Amino acid sequence: MTLLSDLTTLAEVEALAATLPDADADAIAAARARQDSLTKPPKALGRLEDLACFMAGWQRSERPSVGQAQAIVFAGNHGICAKGVNPFPQEVTAQMVANFEHGGAAINQLCRASGADLEVVALDLDRPTADFSEGRAMTEAEVLEAMARGAAAIPPSAGTLILGEMGIGNSTVAAALACAAFGGDAADWVGRGTGSDAEGKALKARVIEQGRQMHADATGLALLCAYGGREQAAICGAVIEARARRIPVILDGYICTAAVAPLFAADPAFLDHCIVGHQSAEPGHARLLDAMGKTPVLTLDMALGEGSGAALALSVLRAALECHNGMATFAEAQVSGG
Amino acid sequence: MTLLSDLTTLAEVEALAATLPDADADAIAAARARQDSLTKPPKALGRLEDLACFMAGWQRSERPSVGQAQAIVFAGNHGICAKGVNPFPQEVTAQMVANFEHGGAAINQLCRASGADLEVVALDLDRPTADFSEGRAMTEAEVLEAMARGAAAIPPSAGTLILGEMGIGNSTVAAALACAAFGGDAADWVGRGTGSDAEGKALKARVIEQGRQMHADATGLALLCAYGGREQAAICGAVIEARARRIPVILDGYICTAAVAPLFAADPAFLDHCIVGHQSAEPGHARLLDAMGKTPVLTLDMALGEGSGAALALSVLRAALECHNGMATFAEAQVSGG
Repeated sequence: MTLLSDLTTLAEVEALAATLPDADADAIAAARARQDSLTKPPKALGRLEDLACFMAGWQRSERPSVGQAQAIVFAGNHGICAKGVNPFPQEVTAQMVANFEHGGAAINQLCRASGADLEVVALDLDRPTADFSEGRAMTEAEVLEAMARGAAAIPPSAGTLILGEMGIGNSTVAAALACAAFGGDAADWVGRGTGSDAEGKALKARVIEQGRQMHADATGLALLCAYGGREQAAICGAVIEARARRIPVILDGYICTAAVAPLFAADPAFLDHCIVGHQSAEPGHARLLDAMGKTPVLTLDMALGEGSGAALALSVLRAALECHNGMATFAEAQVSGG
Repeated sequence: MTLLSDLTTLAEVEALAATLPDADADAIAAARARQDSLTKPPKALGRLEDLACFMAGWQRSERPSVGQAQAIVFAGNHGICAKGVNPFPQEVTAQMVANFEHGGAAINQLCRASGADLEVVALDLDRPTADFSEGRAMTEAEVLEAMARGAAAIPPSAGTLILGEMGIGNSTVAAALACAAFGGDAADWVGRGTGSDAEGKALKARVIEQGRQMHADATGLALLCAYGGREQAAICGAVIEARARRIPVILDGYICTAAVAPLFAADPAFLDHCIVGHQSAEPGHARLLDAMGKTPVLTLDMALGEGSGAALALSVLRAALECHNGMATFAEAQVSGG
């Protein structure tokens, strides 16, 4: 049973925003006071200090921990591929899922390196969503089902959640969601994705503009019905369930961040427990992060998806908590000037 | 015996530049070809791919590894503190060395988190260098001795070297070295360091301008005689010795990068085997990295020193090599489109 199991409309899901727990201000203040007592100049650990306080707030503890780090990669297929937006065939989605399962993909190595467990959830790969440039990508029931599967994928033991995705064509879906949530021209939001050239980018922008005209009225979570896809809806479901369980979330790059744009559009507070692991080389990501007020942990010119940047950022989060919990205070170390 | 043991002048040290080994272009090409065969779009791992190829070049291997990661923190004291450039007393240098030895500092936690061994080398803390605003900070013999100690500190087993520093007052030395090596006004290169306010920054700039007038003729490694200090010279010695042994180096933030500015001034190729772990929040660091053509791995608003940003970057380097060595190729994974 998850928070989403009994809900039958997206309006009910949106209404959850008012009921979800907030970060604990007392725990954050206690963690900040601890940081200021440690043997370093105030603020000298920069973002690491902020990450420790972020974790403190969600775990309601002055001394937070990563706990079991669970990475989940959601995979889906997309009807928009019929328009030729991706040079690779849709079979690659299933082939890459098999690669994840056999341990051969980047995300496998990155999870091992940062100490995360990896779960892959393939969402009806043989049943792509509908072509969003010609109609609604998913019904409300399909979105709710995918959200529920995302929520149910989080194991009881999870202490920190890392979210990623795989789906041929989904950089076009990402650009469509971002454009619909934050406005601007489609061309501002499209990038090379997996191997598109300038002509491919122009094609992506054109189909998104067609979709925008068709779904001009869609707002909030209805954007998921308009543009899809299943992995995007599953990510939204996992984010909501994690929040209910006070589990901090590390989002991945452009596609993963765009996946939660519908949650942001419904209520920005839906994402208070989420940090963004890295800034993708996809040009739309910087724009999206700016619109959502999120500062990425890493910027390494990566553009792979799979949760790769989020898994890498877990190492930084671990290091932040090692410092927070393991350093001596000025008093303990008998260092002057604290 | 290190490369520096028998040298008696800084001119001889500078002449080493022409004799040091270069990166192996064939190994880099082989590593790049391997990257292009792995199950991801070309370049999708961004900087991680570059890091793997960098390691391949120095280790002359298509499949490089971190090996034993050795962090060394060099500590020294500085006569310029007599001018009041730092609000903390010089005793804090020794107190922090004790903190390193007892495991209570940030660098201890960060080395544990990233799997590095830590060695601390305190360089005559009871014998600060001379005040550079009134005369030469160190004699040539003192610089050579500190360089030799830096070179000798690298254990035979080291596979990757992480360099850091500790020394009350050494952000002023760093700004002086950077200003002398790359020009501009002293004010362009000074920052808050450890707890200076606007007035403190102005004081730092003034003493640096005094030093610049006094040491206007100093170039190359003679900058270390002019401005000091022992930990800066030791870092330069360790960088040269690492190069002779083809050991890749991760430099830390502003002070560590400025420490090798004299090597860069003598010959930029001295630093070909060095990457910079992070960009410090000290404003001079971005300027310095730009002048030296180095792109930092991380930018996390840190400004601590101790090797902290370099130790954190080691996790990214490890992740890069996990991907490089552990991922399946398109052929191995039977994924279309490779």
